[in-house]
Formats: sequence, C-alpha cells, structure tokens
Amino acid sequence: MPHLIVEFSANLERQLEMKRVLKAVHDAALATGVFPIGGMRTRAIRHDLYLVADEHADNAFIHVQARIGVGRAPEVRQKAAEAIFAALQNVTADVFKSAPIGLSLEIVEMDPVGAMKANTLHTYVERRATKNAPAGGGA
Amino acid sequence: MPHLIVEFSANLERQLEMKRVLKAVHDAALATGVFPIGGMRTRAIRHDLYLVADEHADNAFIHVQARIGVGRAPEVRQKAAEAIFAALQNVTADVFKSAPIGLSLEIVEMDPVGAMKANTLHTYVERRATKNAPAGGGA
Amino acid sequence: MPHLIVEFSANLERQLEMKRVLKAVHDAALATGVFPIGGMRTRAIRHDLYLVADEHADNAFIHVQARIGVGRAPEVRQKAAEAIFAALQNVTADVFKSAPIGLSLEIVEMDPVGAMKANTLHTYVERRATKNAPAGGGA
Repeated sequence: MPHLIVEFSANLERQLEMKRVLKAVHDAALATGVFPIGGMRTRAIRHDLYLVADEHADNAFIHVQARIGVGRAPEVRQKAAEAIFAALQNVTADVFKSAPIGLSLEIVEMDPVGAMKANTLHTYVERRATKNAPAGGGA
Repeated sequence: MPHLIVEFSANLERQLEMKRVLKAVHDAALATGVFPIGGMRTRAIRHDLYLVADEHADNAFIHVQARIGVGRAPEVRQKAAEAIFAALQNVTADVFKSAPIGLSLEIVEMDPVGAMKANTLHTYVERRATKNAPAGGGA
Repeated sequence: MPHLIVEFSANLERQLEMKRVLKAVHDAALATGVFPIGGMRTRAIRHDLYLVADEHADNAFIHVQARIGVGRAPEVRQKAAEAIFAALQNVTADVFKSAPIGLSLEIVEMDPVGAMKANTLHTYVERRATKNAPAGGGA
C-alpha cells in the first residue's frame, strides 16, 4: 500500500539523475521491512513551473510524500521516515553541498474509510523471486 | 468540491485509453449522487518516472485520490469509494487479468479550516442542461 | 516548510500566464508573514487530461493545496488561506468573469511524525538579501 511521491524542481536534472534518486528512496523504503514489496509504488513528478524561496533560478527542491496504510506505531513511522530520508540525503549529497536546495519528507497515513485496493503485483513478484532464486541442488 | 486525482504509470498507455478511465471514475462519482456536478474536478497525472514493487518494467499502477469536503458519514464515503473503485476495476478489467498491476483508491476529507472556493461552473452547467433539455411543448 | 501545489487544467494556458499565477500565490503566502521565505516551495501541475463538471471543453479549474507545518492556530491558517486565495482570485479575475471555472484552495497540516527536512536555502537567501540591501554609509 505504500506510495512514495517524489516531487522535484526541473533544474535538478542538470545535476542529478532522478532515476537514481527514485531507486534510492524506493530501496530504502523496502529495506525498512515495514512495507510489503508488492505494494510499493514510487513515482516522481517533475515540476517545470515553480518558485522556491526568494525565487532565484538556482533554488531547487525535492519533496517526498509517503502515503501509507494507517495504524503503524509512531516510532515505526518515524524510523521509516528517517531511513528513507537518509537515502535521499545520501543520493543528493553533492548537490546539497553546492546548491540552494530544500529536501523534505512527510508521512501521510491514509484514511481507512474508503480505502480500496486490488493488486496482482504480489503474485508476479513472488513468481519472479522463485524463478530467480538460486537452485537448491545441482546446477 | 470533490477532486479526483488519478495517478498512473505511463506503461499503461499501451494497453489502456486513459481518457476512458477518467470518464469512468468521473461518471461513477457523479452517479453516486453524493457530489454536486459543478464541483467535480477529475484529472490524471501520467508518471513517466516510477518504480513499482520489484521494479520490473511490466509493473503498473493506478492510484485514485478523492479529496472531498468534510462531514459526510463514514458509510456514505465508503459507498462512494466502492462505486468509484468498481468503475475503475471495470474499465481496467482486461489489464488486470493479464498484467502485474496495483489499483488503489483513497478518500481524503479536506480540512474545513482554510478551505476556500469560488466557482462559476454551477451556472454554466445549469444553463447548458436547460438548453439541452427536451422541449416541453411544440417544437 | 510551506508547500503550495497549484493544479490547473491545461485549457487555462490560452487565457492565463501561469507563471503570473504562481508568483501571485507565492508572494501572497510570503506577505502573510506566517511562512519563512527559505521554506516556501510553490509549484504547478499542468493537467492535460481532465474532466470538469459536465465535461464541457471550456470548463477549467485551479486547485491550490497548501501543505504546512502543524501547530498554527486555526485563525492564522484561515487568514493565510484567505490572503493566498484573494491573490489567486485577483490574478484570475478576467477569466473568472468570462469562463466556467472552479477555483479552490485547501490547507493541509503535515503530520509531525516522520516529518524530515534539510535545507540550504535559508543561508543562500540571507546572503543574497545582504548583498542586495542598500549600503548603509557612503556608496
């Protein structure tokens, strides 16, 4: 069920490969063990039209919104946020050292009333994992 | 006031006409009778940059966020969610049978503090409805 | 920390310069004095795929989502919303008079649990402000 929505200002593409950023936060979220792999949906929104702080053209931002199922303990949410944010900071470290940038992350617990889902990902993911698992015996 | 925001992974466009998906959820929301027509705003965000589950290129997702005015009873919200989601499942049935995909929907009640609106849609919608209504008498 | 996310239907670009709209709400938010300049991140999402109200092609919308840090008094949030919305109405006044359009704004208080940030904007903004300030003495 967890959704990671990564918004970023388009000027970052000169300095940063956004695919790497997406992979970093996606993998970090999975590594927490808190979120089922078949439910992880990470996506980016590239903003071409934006104004940051004093509107200087160099100003940049990345904001991550994690929308997750309700009911996890505050400590669990906090730890997950820290892990994902650490990955974000790591992958953007060079830019952070040299540019005016705001990084942020928030967690949104989704309202269980009206929450609906249908998902074939779990089955595919399991099947692929089995196929790719190292063979037990000979080969 | 109701907003439907339909996020989808771009790989779905090979298999699905997204306009049909938008129309399906838009019409389903209206058919619930819960939302005024002049307030319905349905839109899609196409994601070209995304990672789903185990990151396989076939993996796809559609997530619908319904942002509505606060104060409707939980049963009403739940029923509306079910109706919109049924329409989503119906219009994506073929893809669901043959592809790794996650469908989801959530309802967000918007905070009334700071909620502002100004709207000329209601007037236009009524005027058009009157014009298109079958004439009562002769002509 | 404040985020302004301005969603709009693409048909508005014929009648409205969206950069001006962004600047209007960004500057209005800053003028409230409620939000630190180094945290202001305003961006737009242009929607090419949308259905509004009775689905007439002329129908348009702008929706502003302000995501802010938790803990400000309701009156403060309400006043800030009114100020930003007034700026939005002002900059869209011509369109509002002549077109079917829905304008709306909501304020979302972000959950403090899991809220993370790292920001170099403040430093850059201060440095630029100092450099551009009128010299105190001779020159």
